[in-house]
Amino acid sequence: MSPEIIFDPYAKLYSEVSRLSRSSDIRDLLSVTGRADIISFGGGFPYIGGLPPEDFSRVMNEVVTGSFAEAFQYGETEGLEPLKYRLIEVMAEEGLEAEPEHILITTGSQQALDLLGRIFIDPGDTIVMEGPTYVGALTAFRPNGPKIMTIPLDEMGMRMDLLEKELARTDAPAPKFVYVVPNFQNPAGVTMHKSRREKLIELAGKYDLLIIEDNPYGLLRFEGKPMAPLAGRDRRRVIYLGTLSKIVSPGIRVGWALAPAPVIEKLAILKGSADLCSSNLSQMFAEAYLGKDIWGKNLEKQKAIYRSRRDAMLKSLEKHFPREASWTHPEGGLFIWVTLPEYLDTTKMLPLAIEQKVAYVPGTAFYPDYTGANHMRLNFSFPPEEQIVQGIKRLGKVIRKEMELYHSLGLDRP
Amino acid sequence: MSPEIIFDPYAKLYSEVSRLSRSSDIRDLLSVTGRADIISFGGGFPYIGGLPPEDFSRVMNEVVTGSFAEAFQYGETEGLEPLKYRLIEVMAEEGLEAEPEHILITTGSQQALDLLGRIFIDPGDTIVMEGPTYVGALTAFRPNGPKIMTIPLDEMGMRMDLLEKELARTDAPAPKFVYVVPNFQNPAGVTMHKSRREKLIELAGKYDLLIIEDNPYGLLRFEGKPMAPLAGRDRRRVIYLGTLSKIVSPGIRVGWALAPAPVIEKLAILKGSADLCSSNLSQMFAEAYLGKDIWGKNLEKQKAIYRSRRDAMLKSLEKHFPREASWTHPEGGLFIWVTLPEYLDTTKMLPLAIEQKVAYVPGTAFYPDYTGANHMRLNFSFPPEEQIVQGIKRLGKVIRKEMELYHSLGLDRP
Repeated sequence: MSPEIIFDPYAKLYSEVSRLSRSSDIRDLLSVTGRADIISFGGGFPYIGGLPPEDFSRVMNEVVTGSFAEAFQYGETEGLEPLKYRLIEVMAEEGLEAEPEHILITTGSQQALDLLGRIFIDPGDTIVMEGPTYVGALTAFRPNGPKIMTIPLDEMGMRMDLLEKELARTDAPAPKFVYVVPNFQNPAGVTMHKSRREKLIELAGKYDLLIIEDNPYGLLRFEGKPMAPLAGRDRRRVIYLGTLSKIVSPGIRVGWALAPAPVIEKLAILKGSADLCSSNLSQMFAEAYLGKDIWGKNLEKQKAIYRSRRDAMLKSLEKHFPREASWTHPEGGLFIWVTLPEYLDTTKMLPLAIEQKVAYVPGTAFYPDYTGANHMRLNFSFPPEEQIVQGIKRLGKVIRKEMELYHSLGLDRP
Repeated sequence: MSPEIIFDPYAKLYSEVSRLSRSSDIRDLLSVTGRADIISFGGGFPYIGGLPPEDFSRVMNEVVTGSFAEAFQYGETEGLEPLKYRLIEVMAEEGLEAEPEHILITTGSQQALDLLGRIFIDPGDTIVMEGPTYVGALTAFRPNGPKIMTIPLDEMGMRMDLLEKELARTDAPAPKFVYVVPNFQNPAGVTMHKSRREKLIELAGKYDLLIIEDNPYGLLRFEGKPMAPLAGRDRRRVIYLGTLSKIVSPGIRVGWALAPAPVIEKLAILKGSADLCSSNLSQMFAEAYLGKDIWGKNLEKQKAIYRSRRDAMLKSLEKHFPREASWTHPEGGLFIWVTLPEYLDTTKMLPLAIEQKVAYVPGTAFYPDYTGANHMRLNFSFPPEEQIVQGIKRLGKVIRKEMELYHSLGLDRP
């Protein structure tokens, strides 16, 4: 059992979206991960416990003693210049070229989503999102009053045929932007195929669309060929978001946006009112850490752990889940997306799962319209392998029992 | 000369408010403090160079090695519970009682201003601010489209007689809230008198007003009797904002709001979309630092430095500024507010001052309506005493020269 208890800031967002808040017990349960009594696949955490504290301690000590007066002072709203050069190296690892003047460092990439929503969305504007989509983007965009056009995704990412059809409808208003998580999507774990990426860029040109490319997991690839970011194909139309949360640490709250200069300028003005500047201490730590060999080594270590946890989960799903269930096979990232028979409702099933000491996030948390009830998101990066095996076994039992009940009542037929 | 070069995140805000952005040269100059060639009274920085790095280093090391997996992980949106108890102790130093469930920890108190503006202001709503007022509050509130009712302040704080008159006007819409910085106000340096505090609470009751009490400097008192916070008089009507930026470090970005439970709940939901959670690392550092004797000792050291710098500035102003100028005599905080003859314009004068290698923030940056042109804000916490003496001498010359020019042209008469 993991000794780490983590308070999940996402629990509030899930319940905002999926109306889980009706059951505050469940929200409270989901808000804590790493409790000894419950195996939770509900979080979306990197496994910090797998990193060597001494590496972080050494770098932090270097920053605090070597750059004390700067680290503990206010910093520039746009972010620390030397860190921008490190982030350019990070983006280069995925084949994306960038320049410091096109980067704004944010307080996690969640802040970039919030600022972009406030800048681009006027009430009634249409925006395009994947179905399912990242819950943090949903809650960041929604307060600005957009109409959300949800385009389903499959194993190859967003269905471009459906997007094209929607865009071609003469009565449809032109969307303000298309929001996508192309690599190891949260929650679905799928990666957008090359042909879909090309099509999206083509459609953006044809319909004069802006694309927000959110890429928190791109460097967490365990297998397969890396995919070039959308931003590399059209820097003018794509706003690219990165974060160190999954490849260094979420505790330092460092993300960034790469965008055309006028967008960066607008973002910087709004960031100034939102929180003045991100932490210099965090940024200087990140700069120093990314400048050392340990960063690449530690990332490889973490990827090896995640890969083996993913494999354990896939194997357990195969063994313990009913044949009516299906799930995605992510080549990286943190999540597997499970599809159960249409008649099952994972929100209603969650209390039963929790009774059996296992938790997940119900699919409805990832759709703007409360659909997705027969899906669940499972996180494999955080729980140790023995918990994964045990937890999937428990969850399989809960699902089978629920299916039997529906069958006995004749509710499993349309 | 100070070796610290600091990028000032406020420079962007000043230029947003005061139309300084017309001159990007000046904005660029104001955006850097601590340059060897210019004596700047323009910043609003604590003097981190006066703190012992080894204290910070020791505490940080304790956190990184002792609580590694938690410090570098996501945290709860509402903030770290143990830190809330420390903040309760900090508030108790000013005689304010509080409970953890009424506290939300924010990414600097700037974030609280941003979230409050988004929650409370609908386009066209009236809000009340001091004239002059804190530039960060102006830029946080303004994007939400309020009508700003500016109530002038004097040496005793906001003029309650004028506020009462405005509130009594039958045609005036009821303001959504009154925003005040009661202690050592930014930019004016004045402190709200006890009788004004009582009157404000009385008016809030009579007109059913909400008060936002922003108190970043309360614990930076060099002399005189501490004043009880407004929140202590009416916890139901007052939202109290605190920050560690001036009493520990702005580099850690830790502020907080103390408010009634329904407000904290709304703030927490919006904070979740804004940046998920504040840095656990920063919060755990703050919690550990505030738990040690060094925090009080270091604060006393800083106050002694600031006091002696304030005295140096007051003495230099007396010596070098013309008798037509007047200025405030703050009992604490970071700023002195200078009033020049009506016909002078400190925005136009700034390039002349910069030619003479001295800088300040023009008064227009602190008014919503571009008035305040004959004022300037001088910061005394950051520049060393020899710079203060030299800089005020230079600035006095610039002002005298400008006055002579106006006089010779006959422009100094109304």
